[in-house]
Amino acid sequence: MIDQSCKICVGAWPLKNHFLGDCGLTKAYVFEDQFFAGWTVLVLKEHVSELFELSKDGRGMLMEEVNYVAQTLAQVFDAKKMNYELLGNQVPHIHWHLIPRLKTDSDPLKPVWCVPHQPIQLPTDQLAERVHCLRSALSIDPTEPG
Amino acid sequence: MIDQSCKICVGAWPLKNHFLGDCGLTKAYVFEDQFFAGWTVLVLKEHVSELFELSKDGRGMLMEEVNYVAQTLAQVFDAKKMNYELLGNQVPHIHWHLIPRLKTDSDPLKPVWCVPHQPIQLPTDQLAERVHCLRSALSIDPTEPG
Repeated sequence: MIDQSCKICVGAWPLKNHFLGDCGLTKAYVFEDQFFAGWTVLVLKEHVSELFELSKDGRGMLMEEVNYVAQTLAQVFDAKKMNYELLGNQVPHIHWHLIPRLKTDSDPLKPVWCVPHQPIQLPTDQLAERVHCLRSALSIDPTEPG
Repeated sequence: MIDQSCKICVGAWPLKNHFLGDCGLTKAYVFEDQFFAGWTVLVLKEHVSELFELSKDGRGMLMEEVNYVAQTLAQVFDAKKMNYELLGNQVPHIHWHLIPRLKTDSDPLKPVWCVPHQPIQLPTDQLAERVHCLRSALSIDPTEPG
């Protein structure tokens, strides 16, 4: 199901040039602010707001995709800890923020939302490199579904 | 497995008098700050840091417990949206923050960590009432495991 008032459903967010690949039930994107290197957003293809609106099987598949992407990010970025957040306060369409917290983290004890920083939008070449690196690590289909 | 340096494992957090019940793989507690009414913490009994360190079956069971508690909180508090967060930056032992965001939320678009507020520690009678209400709704065993 698609909701025409939802910016994920209409493809306005996450940014198309940050697309990593198709994970099955979800699509993965590099988050637009890479101050926390590797921050990835996993969006459900279907417009659903809450975990409990999914079937048990659907929820299980979703969580295995969350888990796979989180584990890959942890390996690629040698994370000290992974952060997993499903909020939807602004866009009530299931999307997971998966954030590797690195050993070099400037404020490792706080949630990312509480760390004041200048957002880092990667220049085109660095973004392409990050996308390429993560696509390889994830081994996912980089074809944007219709 | 238990880690003697972990404040969850040694029972120092969450607060014992905030215990709701045993959900199976996890134990549920009312969070000590009830500014966001209904904020619940679900802690894994075993000392594990990351979802991907669990077996697929264990992860599936954990997520069904997360889902059940979240759905119950959403119903009890008539939540507009649920927030689900697995961070572990301070205590790297799997614990989920499950936070109903209400229609009366003072700052509904922000993560809870970004909403400045005076923490609300419920007086004894109100805490007992909240614990009683949630235990009934969750239908869980209120016996603290050994």
